[in-house]
Amino acid sequence: MTEDEALTDTAVAPNGVSRRGLLGLVGAGAAGLAIGAGAGVAGGTAIARAADAGASASPYEFYGPHQAGITTPVQDHLHFAAFDMMARTDRADLISLLQDWSYAAARMTRGLDVSATGAVGGSPEAPPDDTGEALGLGASGLTITIGFGPTLFDLDGADRYGIGDRRPTGLEKLPAFLGDDLDPDASGGDLCIQACADDPQVAVHAIRNLSRIAFGRAKIRWSQMGFGRTSRTTSEQQTPRNLFGFKDGTANILADDTAALGEHVWSAASDAPAWMAGGSYLVARKIAMLIETWDRVRLSEQNAIVGRDKGQGAPLSGGDEYSAPDLQATDAGGSPLVPERSHVRLAHPDLNGGVRILRRGYNFVDGNTDLGRLDAGLFFLSYQRRPEQFVRIQRSLSTDVMSEYLRHIGSGLWAVPPGAAAGSYVGAGLFA
Amino acid sequence: MTEDEALTDTAVAPNGVSRRGLLGLVGAGAAGLAIGAGAGVAGGTAIARAADAGASASPYEFYGPHQAGITTPVQDHLHFAAFDMMARTDRADLISLLQDWSYAAARMTRGLDVSATGAVGGSPEAPPDDTGEALGLGASGLTITIGFGPTLFDLDGADRYGIGDRRPTGLEKLPAFLGDDLDPDASGGDLCIQACADDPQVAVHAIRNLSRIAFGRAKIRWSQMGFGRTSRTTSEQQTPRNLFGFKDGTANILADDTAALGEHVWSAASDAPAWMAGGSYLVARKIAMLIETWDRVRLSEQNAIVGRDKGQGAPLSGGDEYSAPDLQATDAGGSPLVPERSHVRLAHPDLNGGVRILRRGYNFVDGNTDLGRLDAGLFFLSYQRRPEQFVRIQRSLSTDVMSEYLRHIGSGLWAVPPGAAAGSYVGAGLFA
Repeated sequence: MTEDEALTDTAVAPNGVSRRGLLGLVGAGAAGLAIGAGAGVAGGTAIARAADAGASASPYEFYGPHQAGITTPVQDHLHFAAFDMMARTDRADLISLLQDWSYAAARMTRGLDVSATGAVGGSPEAPPDDTGEALGLGASGLTITIGFGPTLFDLDGADRYGIGDRRPTGLEKLPAFLGDDLDPDASGGDLCIQACADDPQVAVHAIRNLSRIAFGRAKIRWSQMGFGRTSRTTSEQQTPRNLFGFKDGTANILADDTAALGEHVWSAASDAPAWMAGGSYLVARKIAMLIETWDRVRLSEQNAIVGRDKGQGAPLSGGDEYSAPDLQATDAGGSPLVPERSHVRLAHPDLNGGVRILRRGYNFVDGNTDLGRLDAGLFFLSYQRRPEQFVRIQRSLSTDVMSEYLRHIGSGLWAVPPGAAAGSYVGAGLFA
Repeated sequence: MTEDEALTDTAVAPNGVSRRGLLGLVGAGAAGLAIGAGAGVAGGTAIARAADAGASASPYEFYGPHQAGITTPVQDHLHFAAFDMMARTDRADLISLLQDWSYAAARMTRGLDVSATGAVGGSPEAPPDDTGEALGLGASGLTITIGFGPTLFDLDGADRYGIGDRRPTGLEKLPAFLGDDLDPDASGGDLCIQACADDPQVAVHAIRNLSRIAFGRAKIRWSQMGFGRTSRTTSEQQTPRNLFGFKDGTANILADDTAALGEHVWSAASDAPAWMAGGSYLVARKIAMLIETWDRVRLSEQNAIVGRDKGQGAPLSGGDEYSAPDLQATDAGGSPLVPERSHVRLAHPDLNGGVRILRRGYNFVDGNTDLGRLDAGLFFLSYQRRPEQFVRIQRSLSTDVMSEYLRHIGSGLWAVPPGAAAGSYVGAGLFA
């Protein structure tokens, strides 16, 4: 451990706080110590000075006005987990959990172990603080993004943590949509963590260690691995393909489009509640794709269902991938070139009151079915300023021909608070 | 399509053969056409000349004396699938399947679509030959390795394909081991395909398209995704870590160790049967790790169980990662420095009649259990000259303390034939 790291470690959080969580010593009912929010070392400065061998040269900031992992250039791999609080937890447990998660997340996103003693630096006669499988892998572009589900505010009428009156409008179970075949065990959750990284082992290490830190306070309700990002958030990123073989995310909101982010993604100070200003709302949908059935559809029909051509991703109204679809253009017979029930048309802002969302989904393969088909699909993730944006688009998509090849099997909605100030924790504003 | 590619395509296999398979038109009982083995263009030459935009600059050869994916530098990602032949198939179906798989595999490992018309080059009024999600991703180091299980030769006493008398000695269901808790639905299989690549989407695309090609002849019995290779096969590769947080594969057989490969990995002409000369035997074991339990073990005990130190991976007898363990060394009290029941000792060649194996395993995370624990572990893959090598080592490991933290839930053994000559197919020697 370098002197710089020691400084950071001390300044950001008293070591005693996190170690209690890391070692699983925080039982139900135990209160976490307050983390000094007025720490003298800003996160950015500390990162720039970090000289630990395991630290990446250019990690993504955990601290800041927004949480990382939303507009961050989409990484190649995802490990997502939804958590439920344990039955006997109280407000202090929830706060201490968020403090300990934030502390560990700030370290791991720098490419460091979860604590200063880490995987091998502690006493040989104690279990290590860090599980060790990410030793030597660096930051690998890791981001950790934390969200709060509706049930954190109201579980069957119970306001367990005294935050019921601060619940955002629209933060409730999503309405039922046509095509829903939801598994309750792959839906919902009091809390969620999205870990994205360029190395899956780094994302897995993050979820595993955050789950370990939660011991006695929260446990994983469901989780999902993803690969092959199906979106892009910068113009430098190539548009990836989903498991239907089509480019996905061409028209996504990009990280440098400040106006669109302000209008469609970030909760503003003028939106209620105030503690969410600079935050966003995350929708996750686990969507099984009937890929073997899709693969038997003729190419022209695949193109018509999507509304783009499979090769280049250009809208069927012409141009190239980045040409705007012309929804009015018709062929000689008067039929629209971008078909009435195509995915591109039904999801288009022009048909949805101008609404847009920032997508961040991943492909998944979870093995195979008893019929020998791949159990595969899209793990859809989107960020929006208000939950109703997703609801509006998803309702529009209910007549989408593509939905005949889809089955929505998991669903969740979480309020993603703004980023933490250096030395503070995600969600601090909720408890202020 | 370039002129070179057209040449390759025509030379390696008559287009008609594969297209019948690719389009799912080969019903049970239909015989595949013979593929011209005397093609004028050698695979290597064709690869060097391939100028298709999607082709990688340096793909791994599919054709050659050995199948690729055994000594090939271990790629970052795995998609593995075991297949069962459909009930009504005959010898001609099996041969045509292997021909079609080999043809498509040779193309995909070059970064090409499964056929010349591929994902978007065919008739718009037909389903595309290729599913498209790997468009633009290049070869990504893809290797495709095909194996034959015991049940291909003898299914409950039936010699379905007239190959029963050519079954290799020892190619039978592995014996039961202490710690086995095998799921029949994650074990065995008439055939297997190991697809390794540096991009998981490329490995998934390979398994998906080979499964599609098999339609009507074979179907997936079980499958597994893996990441974070837990071995190395070249001295340039860093030793990765498994989910116990320890370096894994330090003492693996490396690709440039011709003597060790000849002694421990490749079936020789002097071994029976002759058609396996240049081949190997693949063992797959899906091993669940009780990682939350392991994470509560003190560091000194973790080190003692493995027989190495967690940080550097040095044997407990001293030195660095690559020092040979000194199994005779003792402490002042006379206890061996590398403990009696440590993993390193029990797996060591000195305790197993000099036997070694080439390991090629991956980490896996398949979601979580109802208890909120990660459903995770090691997907162990090893190649050996004779199945008994694995059996001997695994029996030795039955007293391994580490086995208290493991549960073997899947198992399989396959004969992996030698590589195909350019224009021929994997397993041709079995039917000669």
